[in-house]
Amino acid sequence: MSFKIATAVNSEQHPYTAAIAEGWDVVGNANGGYLLAIGARAMAAAAARPHPISITAHYLSPGRPGPVTIDPQIVKAGRRLTTVRATLQGAEKPLIELLGSFGDLESFEGPARVDASPPDMPPPEECERTIPDPELGFPPAMMGRVDLRLHPDDAFLKGKPSGDPLMRGWLRFPDDEPMDPFGLLLATDCFPPTIFNANLPVAWTPTVELTAHIRAIPEPGWLRCRFSTRFISGGMMEEDGEVWDSTGRLVAQSRQLALTPQA
Amino acid sequence: MSFKIATAVNSEQHPYTAAIAEGWDVVGNANGGYLLAIGARAMAAAAARPHPISITAHYLSPGRPGPVTIDPQIVKAGRRLTTVRATLQGAEKPLIELLGSFGDLESFEGPARVDASPPDMPPPEECERTIPDPELGFPPAMMGRVDLRLHPDDAFLKGKPSGDPLMRGWLRFPDDEPMDPFGLLLATDCFPPTIFNANLPVAWTPTVELTAHIRAIPEPGWLRCRFSTRFISGGMMEEDGEVWDSTGRLVAQSRQLALTPQA
Repeated sequence: MSFKIATAVNSEQHPYTAAIAEGWDVVGNANGGYLLAIGARAMAAAAARPHPISITAHYLSPGRPGPVTIDPQIVKAGRRLTTVRATLQGAEKPLIELLGSFGDLESFEGPARVDASPPDMPPPEECERTIPDPELGFPPAMMGRVDLRLHPDDAFLKGKPSGDPLMRGWLRFPDDEPMDPFGLLLATDCFPPTIFNANLPVAWTPTVELTAHIRAIPEPGWLRCRFSTRFISGGMMEEDGEVWDSTGRLVAQSRQLALTPQA
Repeated sequence: MSFKIATAVNSEQHPYTAAIAEGWDVVGNANGGYLLAIGARAMAAAAARPHPISITAHYLSPGRPGPVTIDPQIVKAGRRLTTVRATLQGAEKPLIELLGSFGDLESFEGPARVDASPPDMPPPEECERTIPDPELGFPPAMMGRVDLRLHPDDAFLKGKPSGDPLMRGWLRFPDDEPMDPFGLLLATDCFPPTIFNANLPVAWTPTVELTAHIRAIPEPGWLRCRFSTRFISGGMMEEDGEVWDSTGRLVAQSRQLALTPQA
């Protein structure tokens, strides 16, 4: 099942309906970027704007496969942007709470100055493909839904953790499925946690909040992604993401706040 | 009037009430960090949690002095965090839409690893104090509500723009008013825009969205702040903030997405 179908939303009646598909999970719980993409599709439909520009999700409860509802509420419909809030609701509990502004990226223009560049990596075929192992439950099932190739220096599975909380890699959908701004939302939260490369006890780091800025529509081809953490402290860590398209343009930026394992 | 009084919220009845005070404005419009602090106080009161942990604001309309209402709605009350959404509503229009998670920073703990340090700056007395000029309207009135000293290399007013979209400086409240996590929210949005130091047409850059993570309760004394921009492109720019306390600890991190002047 393609990402497009797995994140499709029926917006014919309010609340909108969608379904968490099988296989987008990490040990049974749907990936956060995947849930974000479902929510964003519903909000964009309500806003009648094609693209998320900035969207924030607070993660409330794990999502399991099955039906969900989304109830987008227009906060303000402006000239260039429409701001929307929504709850992505599972069968029993709210899963994520969302707030975002939507617009048409093709209508944006302005001066350019970029003081960064895509991560320098060996070609995809020399990077480490993460393939799910159903028996171990790791790499998680959702790695089967994307084609993700980790930089060999960051491939904690095959070697040792690098010691740096950094994850770099290539990303695309299988079967030549095109990447769009909703796919970029998935990209901001589908890499292994940066803490897996730190010399700290390895554990899942639950996301409190994730904000993604979609800066441009990606051109076809591999994405290059870079996730890094500078501040692990006080029970929390941030994870900063950059997503670059095949032309070397930044297409998305993200930051999440996650909880670290309690001492 | 102290920051504490200027951001006080009456939470005795729903919706809560507050007032935008005089003098916290930039050419008549209330500063975004100041509005965020009012909203966050209301949300923390509703959550019965002392501190914002992660909070996002989407800016809808400029705020003018006068009464406002805030209608915090609990999204989820969890074990460690309570998630709340709210609209800060002015006399005629909604001003900002908010989503945040609140908790008690004193209850958070975990491993520490920090790969950054506070900005290196001359002492406050050798930095450039920004003092409002009511005739020019610049520096803006709100600079009279804080004691803000810009790094001489970034003080675009006295010298020339540095060419780098970077703003570093010291910050405290006047009259020894203590700094708290709500003051940190102000800190994330009260420096001059980084674009004032870029070799680009100078213009106000309206904030679409700002997210702040409060990482620790600040110790007394000067804050050191650093705001930088790496990606000016496609009509948008991000501004990344770090706020460090007098002990050299990161106490807040922020990112905003702003619109650049259209070509």
